[in-house]
Amino acid sequence: MADRGASPLDVTGRVRPALAGFEPYDPAFTPCRINLSANENTHPLPASVTEAMRAAAVSCALNRYPDPMANDLRDLLAAWHGVERANVMVGNGGDELLFNLLFTFGGPGHALVTCPPDFSEYANFAKMCETPCVEVWRDANTFEVDADALVDAARSASLVILTSPNNPTGNLLDPALVRRLLDETNALVLVDEAYVEFAGTPSHLGEDASLVCWVAGCPRLMVLRTLSKAFGLAGLRAGYLVADPAVIDALASIRQIYSEDVLAQAVAAAAVSRRRELVGVVADVVAERERLAAGLAAIPGVEVWPSAANFLLVRLPGASRVRARLRDEYSILVRDFSYAPGLADCLRLTVGTREENDRLLDALSILAREEA
Amino acid sequence: MADRGASPLDVTGRVRPALAGFEPYDPAFTPCRINLSANENTHPLPASVTEAMRAAAVSCALNRYPDPMANDLRDLLAAWHGVERANVMVGNGGDELLFNLLFTFGGPGHALVTCPPDFSEYANFAKMCETPCVEVWRDANTFEVDADALVDAARSASLVILTSPNNPTGNLLDPALVRRLLDETNALVLVDEAYVEFAGTPSHLGEDASLVCWVAGCPRLMVLRTLSKAFGLAGLRAGYLVADPAVIDALASIRQIYSEDVLAQAVAAAAVSRRRELVGVVADVVAERERLAAGLAAIPGVEVWPSAANFLLVRLPGASRVRARLRDEYSILVRDFSYAPGLADCLRLTVGTREENDRLLDALSILAREEA
Repeated sequence: MADRGASPLDVTGRVRPALAGFEPYDPAFTPCRINLSANENTHPLPASVTEAMRAAAVSCALNRYPDPMANDLRDLLAAWHGVERANVMVGNGGDELLFNLLFTFGGPGHALVTCPPDFSEYANFAKMCETPCVEVWRDANTFEVDADALVDAARSASLVILTSPNNPTGNLLDPALVRRLLDETNALVLVDEAYVEFAGTPSHLGEDASLVCWVAGCPRLMVLRTLSKAFGLAGLRAGYLVADPAVIDALASIRQIYSEDVLAQAVAAAAVSRRRELVGVVADVVAERERLAAGLAAIPGVEVWPSAANFLLVRLPGASRVRARLRDEYSILVRDFSYAPGLADCLRLTVGTREENDRLLDALSILAREEA
Repeated sequence: MADRGASPLDVTGRVRPALAGFEPYDPAFTPCRINLSANENTHPLPASVTEAMRAAAVSCALNRYPDPMANDLRDLLAAWHGVERANVMVGNGGDELLFNLLFTFGGPGHALVTCPPDFSEYANFAKMCETPCVEVWRDANTFEVDADALVDAARSASLVILTSPNNPTGNLLDPALVRRLLDETNALVLVDEAYVEFAGTPSHLGEDASLVCWVAGCPRLMVLRTLSKAFGLAGLRAGYLVADPAVIDALASIRQIYSEDVLAQAVAAAAVSRRRELVGVVADVVAERERLAAGLAAIPGVEVWPSAANFLLVRLPGASRVRARLRDEYSILVRDFSYAPGLADCLRLTVGTREENDRLLDALSILAREEA
């Protein structure tokens, strides 16, 4: 029997050179009473939605392969967003769609432009797919994108990824910048709207902040959405891309045929059908975000950025130590970004329930004073 | 709104050159009363297993991200196969693991050797991953592998994939050939055992035909398994690889972190825990396979190969027309392989229930006579 950690096989030289630098992902997860580290939705969904999802799950035949393209779910999403089925691709989480976009449209000579600090998987997937990554750094204080620098960089790029609201900084993208990118460059432009349902008026579920309505008129614009955040379905792995049919077809040609399982398709369809019933949850998260932001801003030494998402970025002295003490002394898990370029002494706090946020505020008030 | 089929975007020149030749997958699926086209398990599972899976599904918290490595499921699989957790990687179907193997260990200068006719995704994924594919064709009549030719080809290869039982030909691999590959070459050797539970004695669930027990002593041997076939869970997308910890770590470094969703993890764990209760289902499929094979062999003009899997390969005159007439006149769907090199006039018939097989035999008796 193989002894773990004492592998007799050396894979050096066997692994594709572009992949040699990667290590197994460490989610830095510690079981805690309160987990506000992964931007999950901790607000309970209405029982009617939960019950509909459960009914969908138990009625699935598991012995048959899934519909490869998840057409029932595609049709629901297309109807919601006012596009055609041919404009929608469902993926095993946004991750699958991001990887497949880089795999399909990236590669040597096909540069990606990103605006860090942003979601770390963009750069990871680009590197895996041997795609040069050009970083146009956001303003160190406001995290706004430098529009001229971005447009300049995008002129010689194949792909631009912008995040709105941005993770982990929380700010929305200026639509005028997307307009400029489409008008002044030839790049494909992906807007990652994983958190958009928390932007704008809650009853609109993000539609007043989303650029999805531009897709039909802008063939090079692609919008990535997910059910992981506002829909409270991070465990399900259901993301989707809204894009030109030629983009969808290109992705359909190389995807793993059955990547979205029957349970995920059925549960996602139930949730999307009942999306109006989620408005209250989104409104609660948004209200709690504003309350939490105000509470944090009142703690001496804590800087908090405005956010249109379900998390807040804060800066405070000794952030990394504060994060460890939150975990160890208060059993509250938050995400440490203090190691990341541009985010010295920053933590990202997912907006939890009222009770969770109260505990977090109480603990941070004490720790900020002690670590000051 | 975009008009489907009339996309204003031309992606030519945007798609990575290695991917330019791929088209969206067409599963050639037509709804039929009897679907014996995809090697799914149509025999109902015991109610105790179905109930346990349903209970597992409804008790999942969907709002939290999955355990990235599916460790509970890994531990169950490791205990079953007598290996360590570090030897097991769970994937979103065997497809994810196959792709990631080619992506990690393939690439220019890292050739793959296959033995067609075999599972078409090997060559597809190799091509996508810019991996040269060396084909050592099986004997045109027996579908046995030419051992000397394979070992010769493998000497300069990075990776060899063998399938046991082979899809679509049904025959088992000679373990002595794997021994030779490991002794006489330096390649990584993957044995794809998607159908192995149907080989050997049903009560052993494949363990008397599997090479999984060799993995601990053979660091370059990897065994791919799935719950899609014997476990009747094709819709769930749950495959797994048993391999050296260094191989598992290399794959863990580049995989999409949350590729296996919480429902699939929970349902798969319930099924694996109750695997002894599936012995009767496997025994039924094996008994029906032998009955169906005898019935087919008795039809004039039909040639049938012995199979250790849950399907049978047959050759008969006008196979492609017979397949279309089975579909259109009898509402029975089977898989056409007559277009595939080495498989002229061949169809692949999944072993169904007794009733399904009777219908298939009746229909084929008539059609074989009419098309002779």
